[in-house]
Amino acid sequence: MSDAAAILKGLTDKARQAARVLARADEATRNLALNAAAQALRANSAAIVAANEQDLAGLSADRTAAFRDRLTLTPGRVEAMAKGLEDVAKLPDPLGRILAEWERPNGLLFRRVAVPLGVIGMIYESRPNVGADAAALCIKSGNAVILRGGGESLNSARAIHAAMVEGLTAAGLDPACVQILPSADRTLVGALLQAAEGVDLIIPRGGKTLVERVQREARVPVLAHADGLNHTYVHASADPEMARRVLLDAKMRRTGICGATETLLIDRAIAPSLLPHIVDDLAAKGCTFRADETARSIVSTLPPASAADFDTEWLDSILSIAVVDGVEEALDHIARHGSAHTEAIIAEDPEIAAAFMNGTDSAVVLWNASTQFCDGGEFGFGAEIGIATGRMHARGPVGLEQLTCYRYEVLGNGQVRG
Amino acid sequence: MSDAAAILKGLTDKARQAARVLARADEATRNLALNAAAQALRANSAAIVAANEQDLAGLSADRTAAFRDRLTLTPGRVEAMAKGLEDVAKLPDPLGRILAEWERPNGLLFRRVAVPLGVIGMIYESRPNVGADAAALCIKSGNAVILRGGGESLNSARAIHAAMVEGLTAAGLDPACVQILPSADRTLVGALLQAAEGVDLIIPRGGKTLVERVQREARVPVLAHADGLNHTYVHASADPEMARRVLLDAKMRRTGICGATETLLIDRAIAPSLLPHIVDDLAAKGCTFRADETARSIVSTLPPASAADFDTEWLDSILSIAVVDGVEEALDHIARHGSAHTEAIIAEDPEIAAAFMNGTDSAVVLWNASTQFCDGGEFGFGAEIGIATGRMHARGPVGLEQLTCYRYEVLGNGQVRG
Repeated sequence: MSDAAAILKGLTDKARQAARVLARADEATRNLALNAAAQALRANSAAIVAANEQDLAGLSADRTAAFRDRLTLTPGRVEAMAKGLEDVAKLPDPLGRILAEWERPNGLLFRRVAVPLGVIGMIYESRPNVGADAAALCIKSGNAVILRGGGESLNSARAIHAAMVEGLTAAGLDPACVQILPSADRTLVGALLQAAEGVDLIIPRGGKTLVERVQREARVPVLAHADGLNHTYVHASADPEMARRVLLDAKMRRTGICGATETLLIDRAIAPSLLPHIVDDLAAKGCTFRADETARSIVSTLPPASAADFDTEWLDSILSIAVVDGVEEALDHIARHGSAHTEAIIAEDPEIAAAFMNGTDSAVVLWNASTQFCDGGEFGFGAEIGIATGRMHARGPVGLEQLTCYRYEVLGNGQVRG
Repeated sequence: MSDAAAILKGLTDKARQAARVLARADEATRNLALNAAAQALRANSAAIVAANEQDLAGLSADRTAAFRDRLTLTPGRVEAMAKGLEDVAKLPDPLGRILAEWERPNGLLFRRVAVPLGVIGMIYESRPNVGADAAALCIKSGNAVILRGGGESLNSARAIHAAMVEGLTAAGLDPACVQILPSADRTLVGALLQAAEGVDLIIPRGGKTLVERVQREARVPVLAHADGLNHTYVHASADPEMARRVLLDAKMRRTGICGATETLLIDRAIAPSLLPHIVDDLAAKGCTFRADETARSIVSTLPPASAADFDTEWLDSILSIAVVDGVEEALDHIARHGSAHTEAIIAEDPEIAAAFMNGTDSAVVLWNASTQFCDGGEFGFGAEIGIATGRMHARGPVGLEQLTCYRYEVLGNGQVRG
């Protein structure tokens, strides 16, 4: 066993033991840990900001202002983190829910009961608050977590972790419920990804490079999405005003989030009357375009799309545009170019909407609403730890419920199978 | 790309396309395919048995009688396969179920809807009927499947596959919904396990060697269990007659199935009066024992257990026995030695039973019933494709519902996130 694997084994053994106790802790105890950790964040706010200043001072000069901003903690941001923990404490308990219950003719009573997943590895990048948010969701859902933040934020991560440990200790829980990797050594990340015995799930949260590395290297199951190449399809039956309003939000509300629309598919029948308005609306907000030939024959000022453009997640003020002949062609386009994340249809015809929703292979599909609603908060989950596009377990926003699995409880009075 | 990978890519591309159409096929069409395949099995019964005879003739002489029996198809077994397909057709449709539904204050209506997983790789060993059963469950649940049976049963597998194709064709579905690997070449299995782009889930069904190889090599998610090292814990409050009756079934009904009890944990308080009877009951059926020192101080004829015995899945008429001091010690033993498959408690005290059920980390936990109930049929699932002990997605018996995941459908009237 390599040094890194041995270090990981030490962490995961402790995590497994802590998780076993945490899984049985009642809701009040788990909430106490969260509320006490929130108090500890507030009490140690100055120390956390000072640790963060160390991280900022160590940043290489070529880091962008945006990166520096994501890394920065202020007293206000520490307070927001503390408030976030208290908000998670207020969410309904995801454990012990009876997901299904039935009786068999032999009198056996079957129950499917929500239980924690076990030990979660959380790998994230520059924003230090992600560590606190993830730890809160894991504690509430009865899971132990091993956190690995960005190498640039190690001091911040340690200071935040210390507050989580204070909270756990105040509630009489094992501090090993929340652990951080002891150094920024990248071989430890590799060992975490390989620790199939000790870790039940890896959640990477960050850019595409990070997520793809994790998906490639992990032997542990991964809950993630690499791309959000989302489409909004405007059907011929669409209400034109609604289509314009929704498109503007779907593309431009925030262009850098994974729920942003990247490609507009618009029906040939409605494009001549509607597309010029959509283009004007978006251009007025600074959007640029990559359009197929049919779209360019309608709005001649649109620049041409290359073949690769329809496979590109822009995360920017750029919209790919293709004209299609009806819902089947739209679905074909999405099957070829989509990333199974989020799609929307704008249509008044309910049969068309149903055909579209039933024909997509994506985690989230919206009818007459903006793709930017793909977000745990907007779903009413209270908080999310990420968004998943895999087919196993959870898809779409991952909240507390999705951090549980189930066991079967079978209640008898001496039944034998005979 | 290796030759094997290229062959696999051809199969998975076809499977993906077929799955997309199958996912949208209505229930009547999927049932028609199953019923027509059942008819095709019956119509081709003689040809299937003849193909099976070729397989049997090719068997090396050192194969056991049990292996030969598992491989053998008779007209009766073909009829049973056909009946199995018809039974699956009668099960409720697992697709389109609304798993959850809620409305947000902005008027958006959220629905979590059951959809197929996509493309499934099924790897099994000698029993050829597993291919038909798995294909039936996959068709009904809208999944395409690529089958890989044992190398010894290739002719049988091809003959059964031909009947599945007849059924699919009769229903107007793509025959690529059910494919088999074109040869027994083991590099094709390796390529299947690596095909993370083309396959959504691998289900291995067979011995521990097969399952462990799959779990080790697969880059695709795996739904499986390697071990069923199951415990029955007899608490001091147990009804002694019930304990005897249940133990006899749990250990001896069928010793070779994964739901058999392998270890008896019995409370110190009840062991002196009860253990001798349990041992007598089981010994009368041919069971032998490996007992810890305390158990041997009560029943002196019991042979001693080695340290490894409590980590051994016997799959035979052998029972490990340990005496424990209460439920916590029983849970500790299970946490150290169990395989997260199935555990049972025999107890009259409901608080103790709840503590046991809540304290186990296993997929299935029974109160006052035999561990041999861990079976999709006994759960009322109608059929099962396997039993899973992982923490992701499905645990316990895997039936039709567990071959689905979900998507979110979000219904609006022009909402933007703003």
